[in-house]
Amino acid sequence: MIDLVKNFSIIARRMKKSVIRELLKLTNKPEIISFAGGLPDPNSFPQKEILEIARDVLGKDARIALQYGETAGDPRLRSELVKLAKQDGENITEDNILVTVASQQGLDMLGKIFIDPSDPILVELPSYVGGLQAFTCYGAHMVGVPMDDDGLIVDVLEEHLKQLKAQEEHYKFIYVVPDFQNPSGVTLSLERRKKLIRLSHEYHVLIIEDTPYRELRFEGENLPSLKSLDNTDNVVSLHSFSKILTPGLRVGWVVAHPSIINKLTIAKQSIDLCTPPLSQAIAYEFMHRGLLEGHIETIKKVYKKKRDTMLAALEKHMPRTEGLRWTHPQGGLFLWLILPEQINADELFPEALKENVAYVTGTAFHCDGSGHNTMRLNFSYPSEEQIWEGIKRLAHVIEKKLLALHVA
Amino acid sequence: MIDLVKNFSIIARRMKKSVIRELLKLTNKPEIISFAGGLPDPNSFPQKEILEIARDVLGKDARIALQYGETAGDPRLRSELVKLAKQDGENITEDNILVTVASQQGLDMLGKIFIDPSDPILVELPSYVGGLQAFTCYGAHMVGVPMDDDGLIVDVLEEHLKQLKAQEEHYKFIYVVPDFQNPSGVTLSLERRKKLIRLSHEYHVLIIEDTPYRELRFEGENLPSLKSLDNTDNVVSLHSFSKILTPGLRVGWVVAHPSIINKLTIAKQSIDLCTPPLSQAIAYEFMHRGLLEGHIETIKKVYKKKRDTMLAALEKHMPRTEGLRWTHPQGGLFLWLILPEQINADELFPEALKENVAYVTGTAFHCDGSGHNTMRLNFSYPSEEQIWEGIKRLAHVIEKKLLALHVA
Repeated sequence: MIDLVKNFSIIARRMKKSVIRELLKLTNKPEIISFAGGLPDPNSFPQKEILEIARDVLGKDARIALQYGETAGDPRLRSELVKLAKQDGENITEDNILVTVASQQGLDMLGKIFIDPSDPILVELPSYVGGLQAFTCYGAHMVGVPMDDDGLIVDVLEEHLKQLKAQEEHYKFIYVVPDFQNPSGVTLSLERRKKLIRLSHEYHVLIIEDTPYRELRFEGENLPSLKSLDNTDNVVSLHSFSKILTPGLRVGWVVAHPSIINKLTIAKQSIDLCTPPLSQAIAYEFMHRGLLEGHIETIKKVYKKKRDTMLAALEKHMPRTEGLRWTHPQGGLFLWLILPEQINADELFPEALKENVAYVTGTAFHCDGSGHNTMRLNFSYPSEEQIWEGIKRLAHVIEKKLLALHVA
Repeated sequence: MIDLVKNFSIIARRMKKSVIRELLKLTNKPEIISFAGGLPDPNSFPQKEILEIARDVLGKDARIALQYGETAGDPRLRSELVKLAKQDGENITEDNILVTVASQQGLDMLGKIFIDPSDPILVELPSYVGGLQAFTCYGAHMVGVPMDDDGLIVDVLEEHLKQLKAQEEHYKFIYVVPDFQNPSGVTLSLERRKKLIRLSHEYHVLIIEDTPYRELRFEGENLPSLKSLDNTDNVVSLHSFSKILTPGLRVGWVVAHPSIINKLTIAKQSIDLCTPPLSQAIAYEFMHRGLLEGHIETIKKVYKKKRDTMLAALEKHMPRTEGLRWTHPQGGLFLWLILPEQINADELFPEALKENVAYVTGTAFHCDGSGHNTMRLNFSYPSEEQIWEGIKRLAHVIEKKLLALHVA
């Protein structure tokens, strides 16, 4: 065989195995209650409706659904997506939309068309690990900006923008997950949204708004999307059916200025020609039949109950100690647990596994390797019973650790 | 809006609009008989069987088909693909397979993990344009090797390998479509296959065998795949369900040494997480129920008749003149027409459109811009009546051009 060390590209050498995927392998045993994954609840899949739609699509539209499709996406689906965006206050047309193999493909393609090796970009601390991986491939130099309970701290962001401008350089983009962020569950406040847009204009820097959970708000008032607050096409937003319908279709979409959509479309021609037309036809019919809104209401009820259970279990079981706290997500799939500084969540992981409970360590989400005392807990996949019992086990593990530390 | 000229990456600036896609826009009028596309015949889609399978999959396996799946692909599908490979003389296991969003994704990912800017690779003259585009993105320096009726001329290839070795450099890979090549319809002879493998060993160079049409042989004896002739894992082969089942599922697969599969799998994690599980479940069931073999027999009959019609129409209508000839594909979807040197197929194109017939100009498939007097004709999509009439029109256009040239 050829010498791979000699033949792999620089991009290939940048690629690392996903820490999360490796962790997940350890958590697959049936006795383990896992908060580590990020899967939607399969009981919430609208199986009956999708089955009916598939039957109709394959009965009547098979020549479309089974053939190659347009690279930009099924025009019928794009037209439905325009309506959805308008309901969310975004004034766009079909030319602003590219349908992708879920939003992960959007992240990869944006990395591909914007990042040259060593280009600086701004990301949240913590941030979605799939975004970090995609940008790492293309050699991005990632600069992390801390968050608090109101999301990304835009004043710190402004300092970074100012500093680089003073060096006559600029960031390629700011990557932000404003709604019920993966991993932290935190939502960017309205005031900060507005300031972020102002900074984007002032420093001529693109914003990538990755918002797959936006529709899954259980409580509080809906906040305007960054895209809807911008009037200069400085925002590219990424959406997905994975959390609001089903991940198995692998359908998402990018909203951006037509010049960016056009470049992404050319990129997609050599990446995979088109997103699966069968998947697109199913997503289109689901929207066209007016089923999406009702289905989202159903999911929200399920996830709200699970979040409530997790919050109640944390409240009940976690030891009261300084520095131990958690976020209160108003939507989405994830909650963030912050441990006292002296506890390392990476080191705690094997002890948690021994007690048959699992999570993802926070360091995986920090581009600078920080976050050693944090962890992500998923509440969409486990049952309410599992959530209650799993948090109890986790609390026990943390309590034991605290005792050991105080003794030592 | 931000300044895109300043912000697009080097990769983005390398991307060009596809000549073929632009041509296809011109050929969309109903009065035009188009040989330009590369679509399978939608009448050949096994609509009834896929409908039944979709019903079963969404009835019984919805929790798998609608959920996220393994990045490497559905283990059940990979196990069926191993059986298929074994029937073709390839001794592989599930660890040699990665399921992709059709074979185009395989091409893009191989470019990503092997090509650094300016890396030299060897490609056929002409070659599959989607491969050329994918490799161009990553900055490949493409060196073309001419073909004749026995495929890639391996003696010329050897000269290139020798020359670069003398400079103490090497090609990253040789990209070849050995069976019923797109665009030429030509098949690589057995003798040359064997020599190609020998050269791969001698010069330690990887071969990418792109073979989406392999199963569609209408006549002549089956030749061993390059993969089956190699015993050192120097061959990576790309396969697809697009031509043997339906393109709308967007399912293909890569066969390679586990070290390469492993790197591609890591790449795919940040590209799109996984190939649509619903599509994979349908492809799996189609194979598992033993439907694929019979379906391939059906397509072969349809395409053979269409190819026969095109050959007969060419024989009947084309002017007899020196230098005008065409290939005799033993399978696949395409035939290649070579015009006398003095006719430029790019210049002829508007004249053909006026006569309501279309093709793809050969230059699009040549990495060095040569092939001005060639064109690709697709026979899988148009009906037999359209093929007969379209070739008559094309012959008329060529005849007029020949007369004009002789007068001038």
